[in-house]
Amino acid sequence: MMNLQLSEGLIRKRGNQNINMAKAPKNAISPMRSEDFPEWYQQVIKGADLAETSETRGCMVIKPWGYALWEGVKEYLDKRFKETGHENAYFPLLIPLAYLEKEAEHAEGFATECAVVTHHRLEAQKDEETGKTKMIPSGELAEPYVIRPTSETIIGSAFSRWVESYRDLPLLINQWANVMRWEMRTRLFLRTAEFLWQEGHTAHATHEEAMAETKLIHDLYEEFAREVLAIPVIPGEKTEAERFPGAENTYTIEAMVQDKKAIQAGTSHYLGQNFAKAQDISFLDKDNNKSYAHTTSWGVSTRLIGTLIMAHSDDDGLVLPPRIAPKQIVIVPVTPKEETKDAIIDACNALAETLRHKTDYSGQPLRVHVDTRDMQGGAKKWDWVKKGVPLRVEIGPRDLESRKVCVCRRDQAPNEKSFVSREDFINDAADLLQEVQASLLAKATELRDSNISECTDLATFEQHWDVSEESQPGWLLCPWAGTLEEEETLAKKHRISIRCIPQEMQKGAGKCILTGADTEQWVLWARSY
Amino acid sequence: MMNLQLSEGLIRKRGNQNINMAKAPKNAISPMRSEDFPEWYQQVIKGADLAETSETRGCMVIKPWGYALWEGVKEYLDKRFKETGHENAYFPLLIPLAYLEKEAEHAEGFATECAVVTHHRLEAQKDEETGKTKMIPSGELAEPYVIRPTSETIIGSAFSRWVESYRDLPLLINQWANVMRWEMRTRLFLRTAEFLWQEGHTAHATHEEAMAETKLIHDLYEEFAREVLAIPVIPGEKTEAERFPGAENTYTIEAMVQDKKAIQAGTSHYLGQNFAKAQDISFLDKDNNKSYAHTTSWGVSTRLIGTLIMAHSDDDGLVLPPRIAPKQIVIVPVTPKEETKDAIIDACNALAETLRHKTDYSGQPLRVHVDTRDMQGGAKKWDWVKKGVPLRVEIGPRDLESRKVCVCRRDQAPNEKSFVSREDFINDAADLLQEVQASLLAKATELRDSNISECTDLATFEQHWDVSEESQPGWLLCPWAGTLEEEETLAKKHRISIRCIPQEMQKGAGKCILTGADTEQWVLWARSY
Repeated sequence: MMNLQLSEGLIRKRGNQNINMAKAPKNAISPMRSEDFPEWYQQVIKGADLAETSETRGCMVIKPWGYALWEGVKEYLDKRFKETGHENAYFPLLIPLAYLEKEAEHAEGFATECAVVTHHRLEAQKDEETGKTKMIPSGELAEPYVIRPTSETIIGSAFSRWVESYRDLPLLINQWANVMRWEMRTRLFLRTAEFLWQEGHTAHATHEEAMAETKLIHDLYEEFAREVLAIPVIPGEKTEAERFPGAENTYTIEAMVQDKKAIQAGTSHYLGQNFAKAQDISFLDKDNNKSYAHTTSWGVSTRLIGTLIMAHSDDDGLVLPPRIAPKQIVIVPVTPKEETKDAIIDACNALAETLRHKTDYSGQPLRVHVDTRDMQGGAKKWDWVKKGVPLRVEIGPRDLESRKVCVCRRDQAPNEKSFVSREDFINDAADLLQEVQASLLAKATELRDSNISECTDLATFEQHWDVSEESQPGWLLCPWAGTLEEEETLAKKHRISIRCIPQEMQKGAGKCILTGADTEQWVLWARSY
Repeated sequence: MMNLQLSEGLIRKRGNQNINMAKAPKNAISPMRSEDFPEWYQQVIKGADLAETSETRGCMVIKPWGYALWEGVKEYLDKRFKETGHENAYFPLLIPLAYLEKEAEHAEGFATECAVVTHHRLEAQKDEETGKTKMIPSGELAEPYVIRPTSETIIGSAFSRWVESYRDLPLLINQWANVMRWEMRTRLFLRTAEFLWQEGHTAHATHEEAMAETKLIHDLYEEFAREVLAIPVIPGEKTEAERFPGAENTYTIEAMVQDKKAIQAGTSHYLGQNFAKAQDISFLDKDNNKSYAHTTSWGVSTRLIGTLIMAHSDDDGLVLPPRIAPKQIVIVPVTPKEETKDAIIDACNALAETLRHKTDYSGQPLRVHVDTRDMQGGAKKWDWVKKGVPLRVEIGPRDLESRKVCVCRRDQAPNEKSFVSREDFINDAADLLQEVQASLLAKATELRDSNISECTDLATFEQHWDVSEESQPGWLLCPWAGTLEEEETLAKKHRISIRCIPQEMQKGAGKCILTGADTEQWVLWARSY
């Protein structure tokens, strides 16, 4: 694979020729990550035009560039779900309250944050003072509904109708949908009252099959995060305190983002027979005995977009791994003189068309855009920097003559440019994109690995979390054998939580950091979003 | 293009060899269309396993085979929308009441059928008598929300933030989403409280551009219905009485289904400056003058699936045009003897794999499925007949030897079979699919054209609608110059409506069928869903 910085034979580096940037590099995003991470995050989203808040409490508008990222998530996962035998279906948005009442633990888990529909009409009412017409709810429902916070109950009730015999199993269903949880504190993508997600729901004849499904999806999520989003998530199991309400086991992928906080990026639950018993998902086995099915559920949401932003973006804005970038290459015609303008635009379009017939490492045609907007060159450049496009290519009058292109990689400084012949760029574009992809994964892996440390004594543990807000502590890997209550107390004290019992990183025999009891179980503690 | 029934050289017809079917052909769906069309429709849906009702009032569960049809709709339209410059985005599900109050006519149009969210929590309450825990709404909202019945208001409010200068126009946005209208009488797919749809929303600098957009999409819908769904819809404009609330012009595609009723299958609205003024979608033009944008909106929904079912299905169940069929060819191994079973299944899989490398007339790889379920052969056959798969292929022991396959076309009688060499079938599969596609369109066009008649006098007009419920009347093309009120009175009297002012079929000067006034406008009256 060719590296732009190393292949001196092919590529001549011009270095920093941008006058505005030469002396006092000013970042495109203010504040910087190191100054105010939460505010930086908001500004990256704004700068890349990904999403915005709305007048609907806690709900966001996902703008085209942000939605295109979600479309990338959907496209990859949908294909993989189908390859592994799942089918899509669609279930009602509104859940009768009676359904929620069936599985007590589950109901409790969601009751405090449900949007409730109680009326089915509006009536116009004239305000006596202002003379204005106001709409008020009318037509009260005998039985209210909640907007689905998740669909275990309503899909379970369908499963109970669909499953009669062992021949009906496994039932492997996925749904792409919107859900609502009335969150008190919201943050674009990471935590919003309404969000988009997929929720898989499956039913199986045996514990083993259901567990295999739970882990299949858990692995698939890890693969997706690593391969496509370039996020080296840590896969593992949740402790009882952090499990999905009603689940027997919850598997998670945990991402470390640049402020070293953890984000739960996707979960896969083994629900045992809990929901099957509450909703009578039962079947006759080969010997004509009635059994309850073993069910699973699993999901990832638009939260992944927030994770992606926090994982890779820098002080100039969004940084996109090429495999998820809606546009992988943006070609900008530089047209200072009217007489060469048409020729340059033609050259840009021709280059784009040639590139579109090439494929990237995932076998997809390259996604190339020519930006012919009537706009000042600097503004245009920074627009694409802030939008995180992996490769920016400029063609100007001199390049036209020399048949070269000027290439800027988003994973390098924004004023770093390389000149390369058009033919070489065409041949190497897929390699270059893969280099950017790999460099982002390597950087994120380096961040992760240098911020997880082992800790085996309580004093060091407690000291670790006692730092100022600005400098977030890394994660600690500790032997743990505490109870649910002990975990919750310790978590609350330091505003941390056990992110998971990691699949790897198990260090063998140790003594619980809190109780001193012998244990073989190592867990990851972290502060999280 | 080869026709199975004509190419005797290649194909030998075995005719009706199915003993069960030979004497007394029994239909797979009961009742037949001629006996009870509405009930037949429900049974077709059930037989094809497309969808079912749920315990959420008026809401359906869309099952995998039905959802796959919707995925086909999405795939085609999403591609076309993007090719014509539109981008996807996502807006909140919940609309503040204040938004609805801004455009009076629009608000009135949807007020009587809105799901209203008034609370954001549930509280567990113990029932003193039964001892059971009941969930009741809690946490009343100061400002209630409605679940979007359509998104003009909330998207308009975003547009008002996004549009400042003429450079921001046109703004071409589409959203794939669920919406709710609290319908009193529901019918699977055709009219449900919640449905899935796409809604396009665009803003333009001029009337001309907005009108061109409205018609571009109108044409695109017509093309999709004809080319993909094989439904020869009639494109035209709605009269004032039938317009979208708040629109200046509504363009529609109207489908005639087999009971001769009309279904509005997709609409495209020119909203003028009505919404732009109500929501302040304004911009500075090139001369720095403030103008209001001209907006459009347009949508098709899961209603298209209902239209598709009613257009083509027969007394044996669903009939799918190959271009929308989730599986175009199903290969069924016929394995009466254990010793040839593996060889037959291998042959089926090999044939499927070869076919998957072929493309259909739209350039997509053929969608082929091998059905190896452990199930009685007759049941398996009828399962695929009821599911509407265009081509069913069987390979049995004798076919294995002779290297032939037995082919059944869903647009022919279910007991009609043809034998053809495997090589010929591989070569001709795409042609055969196209023949099925064309034959369905031809049949639907024949139905449509033989059931629209011109009518120029009121007596004949009124008599026409006065028929028994069982025999539905066709559509009437009439000169019309009545007022809104006259139209509504006549419509109510005969339970009919003006479906559209058709784009074609305009017959020149005539006299209004009701008032006798001179008019050049011909309209289509029909009974509708």
